[in-house]
Amino acid sequence: MLKESEERRTRFQPGALRLRAEVRPSDVETVRAIVVSTGFFAAHEVAVAVELVQERLHRGPASGYLFIFAELDGRTVAYACYGPVACTVGSFDLYWIVVHNEFRGRGLGRRLLGEVERRVAAGGGRRIYVETSSRDQYAPTRRFYESCGYVAEARLADFYAPGDAKIIYSRQM
Amino acid sequence: MLKESEERRTRFQPGALRLRAEVRPSDVETVRAIVVSTGFFAAHEVAVAVELVQERLHRGPASGYLFIFAELDGRTVAYACYGPVACTVGSFDLYWIVVHNEFRGRGLGRRLLGEVERRVAAGGGRRIYVETSSRDQYAPTRRFYESCGYVAEARLADFYAPGDAKIIYSRQM
Repeated sequence: MLKESEERRTRFQPGALRLRAEVRPSDVETVRAIVVSTGFFAAHEVAVAVELVQERLHRGPASGYLFIFAELDGRTVAYACYGPVACTVGSFDLYWIVVHNEFRGRGLGRRLLGEVERRVAAGGGRRIYVETSSRDQYAPTRRFYESCGYVAEARLADFYAPGDAKIIYSRQM
Repeated sequence: MLKESEERRTRFQPGALRLRAEVRPSDVETVRAIVVSTGFFAAHEVAVAVELVQERLHRGPASGYLFIFAELDGRTVAYACYGPVACTVGSFDLYWIVVHNEFRGRGLGRRLLGEVERRVAAGGGRRIYVETSSRDQYAPTRRFYESCGYVAEARLADFYAPGDAKIIYSRQM
């Protein structure tokens, strides 16, 4: 159950929100629409997001890509993509967490991330890693992870492009 | 041309060494044999190494996996696997560099790495990243990268397993 304060902040009836881990063929276009709606990602980044859904549909959980979709009144409006890091014991990467632009500010990202963490911990996972950019555009993203208990563990200068570092956050389960 | 000192150390005639970037179906088993010969990798790690070759054969260069194979007198005895990091401008990952156990200590790893760097730089690449473990078993691996000009840029505690950190090396082109 949501606390009353959280319920007010999220501005949707708890009953209307459904989280699902099942991946459907229609999620290819749903994910594309969600990612594009943000106006945040370049075309080649959108292509990567979509490719992970296709890879999952094609290869199943063996693809290493796990998803949580958030549905509001039957409409899929946000999703997270994560998975175990190959050749590690209990480390997981969070690859994508995106909320449709029309549904931002309602706590959906936090709900999704909480569900990812719950499932990772239930499966014996020890840590979740998430990588993001040092660019100003990503300041809200970094604040989001920090407010969710993620700690910046490493910084790789010029990783994404000259002047654009990669910051690696992690959270222990 | 190799310097005389290097030639002596490498103990093979320079003419006998051939590097190739072309990937053949037979490389699936060749890579498995090379990786297994080291006695260094667990079964699930061998599986990942082989999977990258299969992925490359299946999807071509679009797989994101590029290879350099080292042949001595027609026998493939070492290889490197690398590729551009998605969503970056000019960053490359070195995924695998392995020399068959019978052919270690001849400078083949260094030759392969040099060829990877040459090709990355020729294609406008800016940086090569390589990740390895903090475990004692990997001390020679870390010394190899350090002697090739790679700098430890980050350390992620407990990444591979409790007590087994990931160290991220990089080299600027």
